[in-house]
Amino acid sequence: MKLIRFGAVGQEKPGVLIGEKRFDTSDVVKDYDEAFFASGGLEKLADYVMKNEGNLPEVAEDQRWGSAVARPSKIICIGLNYAKHAAETGAQIPKEPIVFFKATTALCGPYDQVVIPKNSVKTDWEVELAVVIGKKASYVEQGEALDYVAGYALLNDYSEREFQIERGGQWVKGKGCDSFAPLGPYLATKDEISDPNNLHLWLDVNGKRLQDSSTSDFIFNVQYLVSYLSQFMTLLPGDVISTGTPAGVGLGMKPEPWYLKPGDVVELGIEGLGRSKQTAVAYAKN
Amino acid sequence: MKLIRFGAVGQEKPGVLIGEKRFDTSDVVKDYDEAFFASGGLEKLADYVMKNEGNLPEVAEDQRWGSAVARPSKIICIGLNYAKHAAETGAQIPKEPIVFFKATTALCGPYDQVVIPKNSVKTDWEVELAVVIGKKASYVEQGEALDYVAGYALLNDYSEREFQIERGGQWVKGKGCDSFAPLGPYLATKDEISDPNNLHLWLDVNGKRLQDSSTSDFIFNVQYLVSYLSQFMTLLPGDVISTGTPAGVGLGMKPEPWYLKPGDVVELGIEGLGRSKQTAVAYAKN
Repeated sequence: MKLIRFGAVGQEKPGVLIGEKRFDTSDVVKDYDEAFFASGGLEKLADYVMKNEGNLPEVAEDQRWGSAVARPSKIICIGLNYAKHAAETGAQIPKEPIVFFKATTALCGPYDQVVIPKNSVKTDWEVELAVVIGKKASYVEQGEALDYVAGYALLNDYSEREFQIERGGQWVKGKGCDSFAPLGPYLATKDEISDPNNLHLWLDVNGKRLQDSSTSDFIFNVQYLVSYLSQFMTLLPGDVISTGTPAGVGLGMKPEPWYLKPGDVVELGIEGLGRSKQTAVAYAKN
Repeated sequence: MKLIRFGAVGQEKPGVLIGEKRFDTSDVVKDYDEAFFASGGLEKLADYVMKNEGNLPEVAEDQRWGSAVARPSKIICIGLNYAKHAAETGAQIPKEPIVFFKATTALCGPYDQVVIPKNSVKTDWEVELAVVIGKKASYVEQGEALDYVAGYALLNDYSEREFQIERGGQWVKGKGCDSFAPLGPYLATKDEISDPNNLHLWLDVNGKRLQDSSTSDFIFNVQYLVSYLSQFMTLLPGDVISTGTPAGVGLGMKPEPWYLKPGDVVELGIEGLGRSKQTAVAYAKN
């Protein structure tokens, strides 16, 4: 099953993607949020969709695509989880996962514009496999970790490198800007992805392929990450773990780094999880 | 006005503190969350409390105190914001605020036990002034920053120093453990605190005064922090900013660091914002 959300910013409704068509499921689901995943919502929804296939209301094509799930309690990100990306940024292979948070206010739809923040000159891209948690997880073993996963989605972990690295201390300032976490087009439930640790993923800027790798290059795989993170905090249903990005980000470009400017078009995809597209725009006060 | 929440974990109801008594306001307020603050809830509540004083249902004394506000979208913390604390940890005075997030799952009540995580040997305390945001803030100027503040509360920014500093990368792992953010006893609305940048704050462990300072020692004051953070992300109503801790944490003890063990009692307070108390316990599987 593929979960989607649609509608205006802040007023998204839930739906499902069947083939290339979107269908409205808001009659039976309030939203794809903590309460939904915690209460067996996925199973109930699958049953409803099966029983009503052919009679579900279709979503108009011009309806905006929202983020694949509602705002979670946390977006937990992993740094430097592909060996080649660690190398391009000049960092050593980490002994343990590097963990940081993205502000959940950064969450947006897969085709929304990415807003280059005011005073930003180093807005960069990062294609990532996102894992969505299905049930409350605390001190979970690796062997059972996938039992706590609801599914997977595509995420672009936009990063302002000056804010992240040159403004003192932690990475938060460059990771949580508004529009810096387009999630989707859809959440594929776990049964749709036979092995999350062996998926092709790629990213183009203005049609040029810049990231092209596979999650088989993970330093720490999905099971390891879910288990590891659950040692430090409770993962809630609906929480998002973004698993790091492969080589090919702007920061690592030779002979010199290369960052987004207004009008640039970023397209990305992961095998089995669809593709998304964001056009960069300069910040403008609403 | 002093906002409180009461009841079992996950089932807290809203109320107000008048004198030393708590009163239930759940007839007119769902919870002290983003929707409440965003919709002028504070003004409506003040009006309701004024008109119904003397007739509000009292909360039984044995009811647990919950965190002063509902789970926010973010708990944003400032590192090293008192000059003496920066010195004790061996860090330089930062040129810009050091910013990190606490997992919102760490939020708990002011008298809840603090759980020393599994495999933790360096659980530490940090008394802090927390600022609660009252309306959506993006690119706010310092001069108008307090217009975006709903009020203030006491927070203990518990920190596992090994997880935070010795486990690779960012501070997240040592800051977001469950029970590491007791907030309250209450949220004092802005009108109750004449100057947030001049409040006495203190913390005792087992009756011994270890932190004893004033927010007048801030490197970056409340107005500066609200404005600064709003340059990097949108602050939502109900979001919590914790403004850093003064000298006297376990990490800085001489001749050697000193950390919490089961049975230790931590008491803390801020002028005008009450006091809280947590007893340390070892992690035990539920």
